[in-house]
Parts: sequence; C-alpha cells; structure tokens
Amino acid sequence: MIAEPTQPTVAAAQIEFWFDFGSNYSHISAMRIERAAAERGVRVIWKPFLLGPIFKTFGWNTSPFVAHRALGDYMWKDMIRQCAKYGVPWRQPSVFPRLSVLPLRVALVGVDQPWIGEYCRRIMRRNFVEDRDIHTPEAVGEILGALGLPAADLIARAQAEPNKLKLRESTDTAQASGVFGAPTFFARGEMFWGNDRLDDALEFAVGPSAS
Amino acid sequence: MIAEPTQPTVAAAQIEFWFDFGSNYSHISAMRIERAAAERGVRVIWKPFLLGPIFKTFGWNTSPFVAHRALGDYMWKDMIRQCAKYGVPWRQPSVFPRLSVLPLRVALVGVDQPWIGEYCRRIMRRNFVEDRDIHTPEAVGEILGALGLPAADLIARAQAEPNKLKLRESTDTAQASGVFGAPTFFARGEMFWGNDRLDDALEFAVGPSAS
Repeated sequence: MIAEPTQPTVAAAQIEFWFDFGSNYSHISAMRIERAAAERGVRVIWKPFLLGPIFKTFGWNTSPFVAHRALGDYMWKDMIRQCAKYGVPWRQPSVFPRLSVLPLRVALVGVDQPWIGEYCRRIMRRNFVEDRDIHTPEAVGEILGALGLPAADLIARAQAEPNKLKLRESTDTAQASGVFGAPTFFARGEMFWGNDRLDDALEFAVGPSAS
Repeated sequence: MIAEPTQPTVAAAQIEFWFDFGSNYSHISAMRIERAAAERGVRVIWKPFLLGPIFKTFGWNTSPFVAHRALGDYMWKDMIRQCAKYGVPWRQPSVFPRLSVLPLRVALVGVDQPWIGEYCRRIMRRNFVEDRDIHTPEAVGEILGALGLPAADLIARAQAEPNKLKLRESTDTAQASGVFGAPTFFARGEMFWGNDRLDDALEFAVGPSAS
C-alpha cells in the first residue's frame, strides 16, 4: 500500500500571549516572544489584560511578590538570572507593580496593528529597564510618538468608553479561561503559565510533527 | 607574561535539594536529580523538610493548589505535561497533599546513607504513581523492607524525640534561608526555586567554566 500524502496544514499555528505591563515575568516573554514564535512559524496574538482584578478574586490586594517577602526577595534574584539567560535587558524597578491601565488600553487599540510588538516592548523597557512610570498620557505618548504614530488620537481612542469596556472584558475572559497569573499562553486550547512555559507552548502550538 | 596554571577545584560541587514528600513538583525533581547531578559531577545533599509550617507563616492553611481552584486545575495539567517531558511516571493522586511527616523523619535518619535516593524515589512513587498513603509505619516499613533495611529499627529511630526535633529544625532552617516552596535548591549559597530551576542550579553548582 502507498500512503496518502499528508495534507499540509492550512491554518497557521498561533499562540495567545496574555500579559500585563506591570508583570515582571511578562517583561521577559514580551521581549522574546516574537522572535521565538517566528522561528517556529507561529503567529502571536497579543492579549493585554489586568492582573490586579484577578488577584482580587483570590482575596489578594497586591502581587504575591509584594504580599510575601520571601517570594519577592527570591523573585528579584530570579529575574536577574532569567534575564541574563534569555539576553533580556533588566533593571529592578523602584516601583512595583507599576500602574498599567492606560498602556494596556492603548495596546488593545493596537492589538491587530503591525506596531503592537514594538509598542509593547518599549512600554516594558520603560518599566523594567529605564525604571520609569508607564501609566501617564505623557509616558505612553512619548513611546507612540517615537514610533511615528498619532499619539493624541490613539490615547483618546484608548480612553473612550467602548475601549475601557474592552479591557474589562479581556480581563473577564482571562479569568473565565482559568488565567491566574501573567504571562499566560494558550495554544490549541491548552493553557501554559509563566515565561518558563513559553517554549513548551510554542512547541504545542506547532502540533505533533508528522511521522 | 605567562599566566599561572589554574588551580584545580578540590571540593566537589554540591547541591542541596529541599523537598517534602507531599509536594508534587518535588516528585519530578526527586525522580531525576541524582542522574542529572551525576552527569555534571555534582553531589546531592538531601534536605527533607515540612512545607506546611512555612505555608502557615504566610497565613495559608493548605497548599495554594488546594486554596485556589484555578491554580490547582492548571497544576494537574502541568504535571501531566512536565512528567511526560522529563520521562517521570505520574498519576494524579486522589488525596492531596498527603501527610508526609513519618517518611520525612525516616529520610532524616537516612540522609547520609547510600539508600537515601532510592528510598525517596520509592516514597514519591507510592504517593504520585501508585496513589497510596505514605504516612503510616506500614507504608514506610514496606518500602524500607523492600530495600533490605531494618524497618522497625529505622522507624523507631525516626520517631524518637531527637529526630523529631531534627525535622522541626530542618523546617526552621528552610524558613530562615528564605525557602517558601518545594522543591528548592541551594548551590554555592544561591537559592533556586522549583523543578524548573533544577538544571540552572546544577549549572551554577559546577561554577563558571574555566576560559
């Protein structure tokens, strides 16, 4: 018998990247996901959401890294080692976690635009490398302007009611999907938590290799 | 100028492996640490401790995987994938977390004995592969007996006051060292948390390669 030739997969593999600009481990993933995904032919779907409201459903009023000193002390050391491992620039921020609502709203406006990746990396860099606030219109406007984008217009759209609702809905969807931290990835319906699982998620997105 | 030849390191590299038999991610590390360490010429120092009292200092009365449903649901899926990745046998236990005081006390008695690794793997296997309780003298005795060890004598020594104190001291030392979960590794004074960091910890234990 002669085997039928395998039908090539038509739909491109994709990965959902759920992140919050206040999340330090999201910083590592934001810096490396586009390259890592491209190497495997996987498309990145950027999914901005707010982690704070999800923590509140657990009865947590802040990041567990702030609430529990031992966790926090360790995390800052781990970040130095992990960023070195992945070649990601890093400086421990003097404010943590930083307010991230406005840049997340702008990310939602640009989520299907070609500038989304570079925008997200620049916001992350400002927070976790330059140690500067990211929540003011000035901060976000500076980055949009540097990308040659109409900052005032984008920020106005980001702050309009329908887009505010969109961020709340995104956060609700995250929670309903079982997201409890950031970054979180979804590939072919499966959830993967943490930058440590990005490569596993990408492998899973590509699917089992034909054999 | 001619450089002095580098002095070879005399002390063998070593890694401390802090674990609790009730901890599912400790299961993965227990199954693979001796081989992974041997491949790099690193000696494993087994460090049994009780995770529960440390959780209590955070105000947690049980494992976060039990307290927070979203974390727990995810963890069971992650365990299937991680065990497959590392080739570690696994079955989701029907009781979690299982009581682990007695087997930990016995581990403390045997911590410097040649049977410590095999004993720990068999306790883990009973909990996380065979889905059986591990806290009774019968359970522990069965495993010690299978290893050809004097079960009754070892269990008596394990339950004697000085050894009970030793487990409390081990747990206190873990807490004082910043341990907040299991498995945790120490290499050259640096702490690494989680099975995900075992390879990083082993690399660090070996130290920077001469160049």
